[in-house]
Amino acid sequence: MQEHAHISARLDAPSDSSTAVLAAITAMRDTTPLVQCLTNTVVSNITANALLAAGAAPAMCDTPAESYDFAQIATGVLVNGGTPSAEQYEGMRQAIAGAKDAGTPWVLDPVAAGALTARTDFYREVMQLSPAVIRGNASEIGVLAGSGRGGRGVDATDKAEDVLAAARVLSQQTGATVAISGVVDYIVAGDRVTAVEGGHPTMAQVIGTGCFLGALVAAYAGAALAAGLDRHDAVVAAHAHTAAAGSVAGSLYATKPGSFAVAWLDALAELSAEQILGRVSLRELKAGGQA
Amino acid sequence: MQEHAHISARLDAPSDSSTAVLAAITAMRDTTPLVQCLTNTVVSNITANALLAAGAAPAMCDTPAESYDFAQIATGVLVNGGTPSAEQYEGMRQAIAGAKDAGTPWVLDPVAAGALTARTDFYREVMQLSPAVIRGNASEIGVLAGSGRGGRGVDATDKAEDVLAAARVLSQQTGATVAISGVVDYIVAGDRVTAVEGGHPTMAQVIGTGCFLGALVAAYAGAALAAGLDRHDAVVAAHAHTAAAGSVAGSLYATKPGSFAVAWLDALAELSAEQILGRVSLRELKAGGQA
Amino acid sequence: MQEHAHISARLDAPSDSSTAVLAAITAMRDTTPLVQCLTNTVVSNITANALLAAGAAPAMCDTPAESYDFAQIATGVLVNGGTPSAEQYEGMRQAIAGAKDAGTPWVLDPVAAGALTARTDFYREVMQLSPAVIRGNASEIGVLAGSGRGGRGVDATDKAEDVLAAARVLSQQTGATVAISGVVDYIVAGDRVTAVEGGHPTMAQVIGTGCFLGALVAAYAGAALAAGLDRHDAVVAAHAHTAAAGSVAGSLYATKPGSFAVAWLDALAELSAEQILGRVSLRELKAGGQA
Repeated sequence: MQEHAHISARLDAPSDSSTAVLAAITAMRDTTPLVQCLTNTVVSNITANALLAAGAAPAMCDTPAESYDFAQIATGVLVNGGTPSAEQYEGMRQAIAGAKDAGTPWVLDPVAAGALTARTDFYREVMQLSPAVIRGNASEIGVLAGSGRGGRGVDATDKAEDVLAAARVLSQQTGATVAISGVVDYIVAGDRVTAVEGGHPTMAQVIGTGCFLGALVAAYAGAALAAGLDRHDAVVAAHAHTAAAGSVAGSLYATKPGSFAVAWLDALAELSAEQILGRVSLRELKAGGQA
Repeated sequence: MQEHAHISARLDAPSDSSTAVLAAITAMRDTTPLVQCLTNTVVSNITANALLAAGAAPAMCDTPAESYDFAQIATGVLVNGGTPSAEQYEGMRQAIAGAKDAGTPWVLDPVAAGALTARTDFYREVMQLSPAVIRGNASEIGVLAGSGRGGRGVDATDKAEDVLAAARVLSQQTGATVAISGVVDYIVAGDRVTAVEGGHPTMAQVIGTGCFLGALVAAYAGAALAAGLDRHDAVVAAHAHTAAAGSVAGSLYATKPGSFAVAWLDALAELSAEQILGRVSLRELKAGGQA
Repeated sequence: MQEHAHISARLDAPSDSSTAVLAAITAMRDTTPLVQCLTNTVVSNITANALLAAGAAPAMCDTPAESYDFAQIATGVLVNGGTPSAEQYEGMRQAIAGAKDAGTPWVLDPVAAGALTARTDFYREVMQLSPAVIRGNASEIGVLAGSGRGGRGVDATDKAEDVLAAARVLSQQTGATVAISGVVDYIVAGDRVTAVEGGHPTMAQVIGTGCFLGALVAAYAGAALAAGLDRHDAVVAAHAHTAAAGSVAGSLYATKPGSFAVAWLDALAELSAEQILGRVSLRELKAGGQA
C-alpha cells in the first residue's frame, strides 16, 4: 500500500497533542462559550444550530448599533464575509473594535477571497486588526498571503498542502493561527503545523459546514483563552470535532445530503471528547519541514 | 413525591379552558391565517416551515415599501427584533401602523431586551403602540415591565414564576396579553394567569422554536379575532400546540437535536386538536394569587 | 374513469422530447453550473443545499458591489424578489446588467407579483431586460402578462391552465421561456407548450421548493446554453427533476413535512436522469391548441 509521498514526507509521528485537544474540548463544553456571529445569511441557521449542538451558545448580533457592545461580552467573535451587505460590513468593523478593546478573540473567515474585489479588499483591511485565527480553504489563504500569483487569487483547485508556506507567512504577518480546510486540514502557527484527517466527502454537499467551522473555532479559541489553554490546540480541537461528526454521519448516510445533515447535527452533540479523538487522525509536521 | 411549593401554591385545579382552547385550535386550522413575519434572518426559514406545518400561511414581508400595505391584508403580524437592520426597523414601524389602522393583531417578541440598548429602546417605543400580545422569556418580560432592577434587565437565570407580577403590570400598561416562556409557560392578562406545562428540554437545542412561537401566537390571535373567540385562550392554544409537538418529538428523539427538529415539524402538522390537549397540562392560577 | 376535459382536450401524445430532456439533465450534472442566486433570505439555505444536491454549484452573491462582476463568471443567474431590500434591488439591477453583457442566461421569479405594488413595479421594469426564463405561479404570470384584470393581479386560486394564453403573450413580449408552476407545470415558448406532471402535494408544505425551482432553471438554462442544447427542453428538465424528487419523497413521507424535506433533498441527489424521467409525465400541447 503506497502512501502519498508529498504529504507523508512531511508528516512525523502521531501527534502527542491528543491530551491537549481533549482538554480543549472539555473546556469548551464545560463553559458554553457565547459566540457572536457576523456571518452570511445563507448559513446563519445551521451555524446557530450546530454551535448549540456542539456545546456553545450562538448570538447572531451583527448590526452597527450593537456589535461593539456585544463583542465586549462575547467569548469569541466570528467575522464571515459570505454575503456582505454595507450595513454588515460596518457591523463587522464595530465588532472587531469591540473584540480588540475587550481582548475577545475573533476569527476571520475570508469567504471567496480573491474571486471578488470588494470583499478581498475588506479582508485585507481587517486582517491587520489582530484576528486570533484566520480560517479558509487553500485558495482563500493563498490570496490573503499574497502568494505566488500576485495576490490576485489562486484558483479553487489549489490544495492545502501547496499553501502551507503561504499560511506560515500569513501567520507571521498577522499573529493569527491560520487554519486551511481541505481533505486534510492544516493548523499553522509559527513553526508548528498540525494535520487533522477525518471528516467525510458528503460534508461538502451540505451548505455551511465550513462556515460553521469558523464559528466553532471562535467558540474553542474563546474557551481556551478563558481556561488558560493553548490556542493552537483549541483550533485543532474545533476541526477534530467537526470532522468526527462528519465521519460518524457519513458512515451511516454517505450519499444522501439531506439525511447526512441531520445525522451530522446529531453527532456534533452526541460525540464525547474521547469519541471525537477516536474518529480523527492528528499528526504534527516535522520541525523545519518543507512548508 | 414532593411538589415545588413555589409554583404549586399558586396553581388551582386543572383549567376548565380546555374547550375554549380546542375551539381556538380548530378555528386556526380551519382558516389558515396569513401571518406577516418581520423576524430575524436566523429563524425565518424554520418559522415559515413551522407555520405551514401548524396550519397557518407565512409571509416574510418586512420592507418599508411593503409592510404597511401587507399588514392590512394579514390576519396577524409578528414583530421579532432578533437581527434588527435599520431597514427592517423602519419596516416594523410601517407594519405596526398598518396593523393598527386595519385592526390586525400584532405580536411583539422582544428578543434580547435588556442585554442590548438599541433594541431595548425600540421595544419600549413600540410596546406603546397597542400590541395584542407580548411574548418573551422571563428576562425580556421583566425588562419591558421595568421591574426590580431599574429596567436595566434581569439576568438570563430569571424564572417565569418570578416575573408574574411584572407581567401583570406590563399587561395593564400596554393592554397586551403577556406570555412568558420557560419550563412552564404563563399567559397573563388582567387577573387571569394560565400555566401551560409540556414541551421538552431539547426544544431549547433547536434555534427558532421560541421565535416561531411568537409567529404562531400571531396566527392564533388573528384567527381568534376573526372567529370571535377569546384572545387569552388563543394564546394558550398556540403555546399548547408548540409544546405538544415538542413532547411528541422528544419522546422519540430527545437527545439528538437534528432528528428532533425534523420530528417536531412533523408533529406540528400531525397532531389533532385533541392530541395537542392530551399532551399538555393547563392550569389556571388562583384568583388573587401572589402574582 | 373520467379525465379532466379542460386539460385533456389540449394534450397530445406523450412528449417525444424525452431524449432531449435526458440530454439536458446529463449536461447539467456533467458541468456543475455555477448559479448566482439573488433570492429571498427565507429560502437561501434550502436553495443552496438543493442546488448542490441536484448537481449545481450555488453562489448567493447579491450585493451591488459584487453582482455585476459575478454575473460575468456565473453559468446562470436567478433574480427572486421574495424579500426585496433596497440594497438587493440594486444588486439585482447590477446582476442583470452583468448577465446581459456576458450573455449569461438569467431567470426572473416574480414572487407575489400583483399583491404588492413596489415589487410588481420592479418586476415589470426588469422583465424588459431579456430574461431567459420567467417562472412563477399562475397568478404571478397572469399579472406580468397584464391579462384579463387590467394587470392588477389575478387571485391565488387561478389555475395554470387558465393563463396559458397570457403566458404565450408574455413569452412573445419578453423573448423568455415562461414556466407556470401548479399541480401540472407548463413550459411555454412560441408555439410550444409542454406539460410536466409529477411532484407531490406535500411539496407545497415545504418553504422554498418553488423558489429553488427558479434557481434550478437557471442552472439548467446555463448548462444547456454552454452545451448547445435547447432552452425549452432544459426548463422542462429542471421541472421534471424537482417534481420527480417530490414524487419519490412523497411516496415515503407524504404527510410529514419535516421528514419530507429531508427525503426530497436526498432524492434530488440520488435520482438518475432515467429515474427522473420515469417519475414524471411529459406531454406536448397540440399545435394551435386553445392556449
